[in-house]
Amino acid sequence: MITVHSIQELRDALRRAKLEHRRPDGDPAIGFVPTMGYLHDGHASLLSQARNQSDVVVLSIFVNPIQFGPNEDYEKYPRDEERDLAVAKQHGVDIVFMPTPDMMYPTPIKTKVHVDDITGPLCGATRPGHFDGVTTVVTKLFNLVQPNKAFFGMKDAQQVAVIQRMVADLNFPVEIVPCPIVREEDGLAMSSRNVYLSEAERAQALVLSRSLRQVDSWLQNNPKLTAPELQQKMREMIAEQPLASIDYVEILSFPQLESVSPDMPLEQRDGNILIALAVKFGRTRLIDNRMLTHGE
Amino acid sequence: MITVHSIQELRDALRRAKLEHRRPDGDPAIGFVPTMGYLHDGHASLLSQARNQSDVVVLSIFVNPIQFGPNEDYEKYPRDEERDLAVAKQHGVDIVFMPTPDMMYPTPIKTKVHVDDITGPLCGATRPGHFDGVTTVVTKLFNLVQPNKAFFGMKDAQQVAVIQRMVADLNFPVEIVPCPIVREEDGLAMSSRNVYLSEAERAQALVLSRSLRQVDSWLQNNPKLTAPELQQKMREMIAEQPLASIDYVEILSFPQLESVSPDMPLEQRDGNILIALAVKFGRTRLIDNRMLTHGE
Repeated sequence: MITVHSIQELRDALRRAKLEHRRPDGDPAIGFVPTMGYLHDGHASLLSQARNQSDVVVLSIFVNPIQFGPNEDYEKYPRDEERDLAVAKQHGVDIVFMPTPDMMYPTPIKTKVHVDDITGPLCGATRPGHFDGVTTVVTKLFNLVQPNKAFFGMKDAQQVAVIQRMVADLNFPVEIVPCPIVREEDGLAMSSRNVYLSEAERAQALVLSRSLRQVDSWLQNNPKLTAPELQQKMREMIAEQPLASIDYVEILSFPQLESVSPDMPLEQRDGNILIALAVKFGRTRLIDNRMLTHGE
Repeated sequence: MITVHSIQELRDALRRAKLEHRRPDGDPAIGFVPTMGYLHDGHASLLSQARNQSDVVVLSIFVNPIQFGPNEDYEKYPRDEERDLAVAKQHGVDIVFMPTPDMMYPTPIKTKVHVDDITGPLCGATRPGHFDGVTTVVTKLFNLVQPNKAFFGMKDAQQVAVIQRMVADLNFPVEIVPCPIVREEDGLAMSSRNVYLSEAERAQALVLSRSLRQVDSWLQNNPKLTAPELQQKMREMIAEQPLASIDYVEILSFPQLESVSPDMPLEQRDGNILIALAVKFGRTRLIDNRMLTHGE
């Protein structure tokens, strides 16, 4: 495993790896896992997928300043370089790219990649500019790494939808591979931000996954349940936790992220439906979601 | 020479060409000339440069709808596929990519690449959205062709500045090669739009290049000449042509495209200064420019 910091070192390491793994019919398959570090088992599952599907695995660790709002947690975002490198090594990563903000933004960036519509609801509504920061840095990283496949966790379902749309619209030669949410044994979706939670907040935060699991029995008990009715049930269940402050509970088509008809029973849905939550516990904002697939 | 229309055909042709021209130390150098067709000697000079500097030369011909405003000439933009292919062949092009708008925009595009500041003055001021259309389609074409070098004419000096900035900001693995303006014998800068001009308009349009050449003697006669004074002289000279309607006469730093100090003599300038013109003759809008380089 090679750890590189500068863009030039990355280019050199990629060129060597491509020559080393060259195949008779063309270049080797590069698998890419972009992260902000503080790796957990969710990231590890992305690395395993990348290892299985690629000749060369590249992991980037970069807490990207331009996707954080002025009142968000950029400065205190958790970091643990040593542990991250151990996780990377254990999962067979070939190249770890860990640039500094100065390397990624040597001058104030004047170019933005913006995706319309899909960035409007959910996290886009409460985090203005967040997705421009994500699509811009992902474009930079795709251009630097030039992967064949890139692996993203479905916990950030909206991020997956936005990046898939960007890749299709801009013809990036990359396949986006969405990977399932990984959870703690008690159901809490893995997140680097879980480390912020107090013991009491952590206990009450289980309501996110619990309410998502509960959807099955609500739908079974009432086959005519509509999106607004389900939304209401979930909001009530979450509101029972005194430390929980709901940011959103939304039920949208996926990957379009458009409203679903408020009158139609969810069981009669056509296509995928995303149930997505964002809930604050103290200053920690957690997200979780599940997909209702057609004919599930 | 292979002519391809669909994205899949392009990818196949590129894969074959890359294998065929493979080098022991890596992939062959791909040179790319993006155009809107109706090729003239300016385009031909880009193709010659590409041929000299690359193993594989790719030419794209695509009149990009999203860079035209609602009242611009998208529908009547001149096209001559047969002659373009002859020019391409003559200049040793390997792959011609001629997609239809449906192939480039199979669904309405939701993603835009936007460059701030540099897109504001000059053509950006009178053609709102134009440069977003340019940077977005160039991003698409770069992702499709994956060139090592791309060749752009300096007649569109602002376009060169905008694309160079985009490439730097987004880490595209492409070198932008700006190529000198090519002129008719009488000085008129080559442009596909010259075909729109009536005989009278064509004769009066020579004032663009004449006023740019005249700059040398104005500067010689008055070493203290400032940007506003030069601007005024040029406007007066152009205004003598009754069919000319000035869009802009601007003197800006290059490639930043920022105003230069109005009090400083131009001869004391530091860095490159762009003198750029846009003048309408009837419904035809022509642009031209020249660079004053430091110490010229």
